[in-house]
Amino acid sequence: MSPRAGVAYLLTIGDELIAGEQRDLNSAWQAQRLAQLGYRVEGVRLVGDDEEEIAAALTELAPRASLILCTGGLGPTLDDLTRHAVARAAGRELVRDAEVVDGIRRWFEAGGRTMTAANERQALFPEGATRLENSAGTAPGFRLELEGCDVAVLPGPPREMKTVFEEELAEWLGSCAPVESRVETARFYLFGLPESDFADRVGEWMDRDESPRMGVRASGGVLKVKLEARGVGSGEILADRAAAFRERLGRWIFSETSPEPAEVLAAHLIERRTTFACAESCTGGELASRLIAQPGISAVFLEGFVTYSNAAKVERLGVPEALLEAHGAVSPEVAEAMARGASERSGARLALSTTGVAGPDGGTPEKPVGLVHVGIAFDGRVESHELRLPARGRAFVRTWAVNSACDLARRALLAADA
Amino acid sequence: MSPRAGVAYLLTIGDELIAGEQRDLNSAWQAQRLAQLGYRVEGVRLVGDDEEEIAAALTELAPRASLILCTGGLGPTLDDLTRHAVARAAGRELVRDAEVVDGIRRWFEAGGRTMTAANERQALFPEGATRLENSAGTAPGFRLELEGCDVAVLPGPPREMKTVFEEELAEWLGSCAPVESRVETARFYLFGLPESDFADRVGEWMDRDESPRMGVRASGGVLKVKLEARGVGSGEILADRAAAFRERLGRWIFSETSPEPAEVLAAHLIERRTTFACAESCTGGELASRLIAQPGISAVFLEGFVTYSNAAKVERLGVPEALLEAHGAVSPEVAEAMARGASERSGARLALSTTGVAGPDGGTPEKPVGLVHVGIAFDGRVESHELRLPARGRAFVRTWAVNSACDLARRALLAADA
Repeated sequence: MSPRAGVAYLLTIGDELIAGEQRDLNSAWQAQRLAQLGYRVEGVRLVGDDEEEIAAALTELAPRASLILCTGGLGPTLDDLTRHAVARAAGRELVRDAEVVDGIRRWFEAGGRTMTAANERQALFPEGATRLENSAGTAPGFRLELEGCDVAVLPGPPREMKTVFEEELAEWLGSCAPVESRVETARFYLFGLPESDFADRVGEWMDRDESPRMGVRASGGVLKVKLEARGVGSGEILADRAAAFRERLGRWIFSETSPEPAEVLAAHLIERRTTFACAESCTGGELASRLIAQPGISAVFLEGFVTYSNAAKVERLGVPEALLEAHGAVSPEVAEAMARGASERSGARLALSTTGVAGPDGGTPEKPVGLVHVGIAFDGRVESHELRLPARGRAFVRTWAVNSACDLARRALLAADA
Repeated sequence: MSPRAGVAYLLTIGDELIAGEQRDLNSAWQAQRLAQLGYRVEGVRLVGDDEEEIAAALTELAPRASLILCTGGLGPTLDDLTRHAVARAAGRELVRDAEVVDGIRRWFEAGGRTMTAANERQALFPEGATRLENSAGTAPGFRLELEGCDVAVLPGPPREMKTVFEEELAEWLGSCAPVESRVETARFYLFGLPESDFADRVGEWMDRDESPRMGVRASGGVLKVKLEARGVGSGEILADRAAAFRERLGRWIFSETSPEPAEVLAAHLIERRTTFACAESCTGGELASRLIAQPGISAVFLEGFVTYSNAAKVERLGVPEALLEAHGAVSPEVAEAMARGASERSGARLALSTTGVAGPDGGTPEKPVGLVHVGIAFDGRVESHELRLPARGRAFVRTWAVNSACDLARRALLAADA
């Protein structure tokens, strides 16, 4: 195998990228996708809309790689110079593709607009290049060979880039990449297990040289775990480790497909037709918002109460004033009364509540910033759960509290199934 | 002036970056910051934790630039090779800095932990380098000269990178960069003006060669406008254009500092001590959530109603059933009844409401996905506003509706001031 086999570089083009006005939203996705197909990305370059710079980068990288994925700069304006730069690096002429001109014209007509002369630029391709159709926009991509290196050129808008990649490029790239570098992946999403406990339980699988390789990232109380096996036989190696992983950590895994506890709870609620309500203080509508973001939720979501003031807790949820006085709004008692009230008043079978100190102010030695109580009422049974989170800002505390509430409800639903 | 004066490259280091597992969160910020200080970033490179690759990139870029900002790979593990690579490119030895070892030891002791031998790696610097203190972490950065090019090396975690940049580097860089390339910036945030109308009104200022240069980006109905003037006298040129901009477009400008209508509304409410409530259907708690994210809001935010079902609209807000039957939940009449109900039931002086078709399902020819009514009740007066948005997904429709509601309330507050 040649040393450049399976080696890829990403070349991402746009003045707005190097000026820092627009983040590069493509290269992380591309690197992950290429790894799955058997490529190893060795570098990413961002350059401006500059014909000479783009051509120089291609000429420099081609001898070191088997693939350069070149993204952006295919638009209709005079700034968009990627096609010219590729043609120059490859020593080819740009030729106008009449079929593409017709396609662009039809695209505009379908939208009730008229194609401008500028759009004809999008029909120019280096002689002999293979066109990559774009079903999501006007600019097709293309690919060609440059000194034994495949150069694939994709449009910059992320939706168009992904469409062209998946529809026109992925299968072909998969057939070009060395089989022994193809990567198989398994993912696990856990909630409620501290990162340090995680390391204690499966630390020996975290070694860099271990196969499958394991990576873990923590966010809002969720641990996102990725297992990756590379090469021949990787499917089997991965399946064995995944089974062992489930055996050790199954009680914390809430999904193998979604990193979002609200999405997983929504699916459980919809599947069981369990009606739902929530009463939020410190999370301020974020719990309702994250659930309502899920399509299909309207079948089970009855209502949400954002009872930020004590008056609203009393008035709307029937939390006894005496309880607020005796224990304060941030207490297990009030969390439970809120959940009970939300369930009773809405008629929902399952209700969640949150009350806590999100910060930055409002903390006391007894009830510091980061203290949250999450309540649940399910079929008339009520309980609560205490969180003591680091004071890393309002958004941090709220997101963790929302995730915790969703996971609590998921566990209650599964327990009721059993 | 030498052709490389003011030219900068960003070199960002980390295996997780080129594998696509972690997005590069530093370079966009750095590019913008460097532009303000008078540098022009001509390229960004992401490379892995590979001593040879890093050194090769430095050697290649140094003759073309007056600054290379090199970020990441300063951690304590054997993977972190940036200091070694820089020393190699500069042909210098790495030397251990006893003062830094002491500092790291104290940092660990303050956290109740013990420094490991690995952490001593963080006290190695190329001979003759100037240390850049890190008040936010254990790894100091450093700078040195490489063939007439300044190379500054910063830690990778964004918070540490920004701290070291601002505390140790910004002033010095400002003094090195050519005065004539320093950039002055003004920003405007507008709501309610379509992007095409914007271009009609100030198109002649959008030319690439215009000074100040103007850039505009649209998101959720908000237009984010940046004016940038470069060089000697730029302050005055900018002030003149900004004044003209305010004159032409003042009625759509909601802020010159915050791109977030909810943040601006929160400030107006808090400043005027105007009590607030909201009743949400299609936005599902996102309006409440975005407002409650603002510190200090508890003084005025009374409560939120997430009345997703019709039953909740009737029960909680007193929307007449006959109204729902006659006009449907997505109608100006119901939006207004929701706002009125939220205001009356909570006692808030100002209440907002949203009802619409967020999609992907539920659209009809008469009431397509993207149709939203936003209601407002203020001091007993009620009105509503219709939005017809493109069907670009639930999140798109919801965010635009939230922004629209916040801007409607802001205008009502300002009108009442007058």
